[in-house]
Amino acid sequence: MGLFTKDIKTMDDLFLHMLQDIYYAEHKIVKSLPDMIANATDPQLKSGLQSHLVETNGHIQRLEKVFQMLDKKATSVDCPAIDGIIDEAEDVSGEVEDQDVLDAAIIAAGQAVEHYEITRYGSLISWAKRLGRSDVAKVLEKTLKEEKAADKKLTTIAESKVNLKAA
Amino acid sequence: MGLFTKDIKTMDDLFLHMLQDIYYAEHKIVKSLPDMIANATDPQLKSGLQSHLVETNGHIQRLEKVFQMLDKKATSVDCPAIDGIIDEAEDVSGEVEDQDVLDAAIIAAGQAVEHYEITRYGSLISWAKRLGRSDVAKVLEKTLKEEKAADKKLTTIAESKVNLKAA
Repeated sequence: MGLFTKDIKTMDDLFLHMLQDIYYAEHKIVKSLPDMIANATDPQLKSGLQSHLVETNGHIQRLEKVFQMLDKKATSVDCPAIDGIIDEAEDVSGEVEDQDVLDAAIIAAGQAVEHYEITRYGSLISWAKRLGRSDVAKVLEKTLKEEKAADKKLTTIAESKVNLKAA
Repeated sequence: MGLFTKDIKTMDDLFLHMLQDIYYAEHKIVKSLPDMIANATDPQLKSGLQSHLVETNGHIQRLEKVFQMLDKKATSVDCPAIDGIIDEAEDVSGEVEDQDVLDAAIIAAGQAVEHYEITRYGSLISWAKRLGRSDVAKVLEKTLKEEKAADKKLTTIAESKVNLKAA
């Protein structure tokens, strides 16, 4: 959460900081998804990532709506966690040659991203409720639902490879 | 996954690499948990993190067992993802003064760590099955179950704060 954390005194500050953190993360994901889509071979994986790119742009708009609901300007703070997750993903995508192995690595990278978002949106929703802002929680719950569905879709694709091998 | 990724040619290589990645991550978590425990105030949170520290040492032993089952030496590779997640956690823990806010930040940091592990163990289990190593998958499933339980416990603690506020 970087250098700004000394400004965190209240739950409102913590909430705003996490919102800025996930706002940064969503932008980073939008930038990295096109490479993942280009590198993927499995058609189900490719189209799943493509739909998720569209969804992710929607998540950014929802975050901007939340900033507005809180009368705050939409800004981001550096998020070393998502930087690290995406660095790992890019490293692998660039180096693995075998297409099946590359697809497996892309699925794993995508799931690491989804789980990061699931945990951050989970905290934000819990804190919004604690702060008496169930209106904000409701907006964020829509995104959380989509992140969970995206993770589940990746699990299904991964499992189909296991079953293919077993058949 | 760092500089070694050019060595990833097969699913076996990818599996081994991820194993080394999570081996690094578990060691990093063992090092960071004592600070989180020291900073936590809520007794349920403190004791939950303490039990998880004991469990985490068990996860390292299980990973060493898996390395042995594969006739490989237990080694680790740098994992920028967990470094980033823990950097964020340490930043916040060091800067927030209000104890309730600090507990909330520690819960969120703990859940980010758990979700990282859940996704990595999930991939490893899926790949072990794909490689015909259900014996390895079974060992890793024990850890995955404990990581999920640890995440659920943190959710319960976070929710109790929401309910307290609502009461």
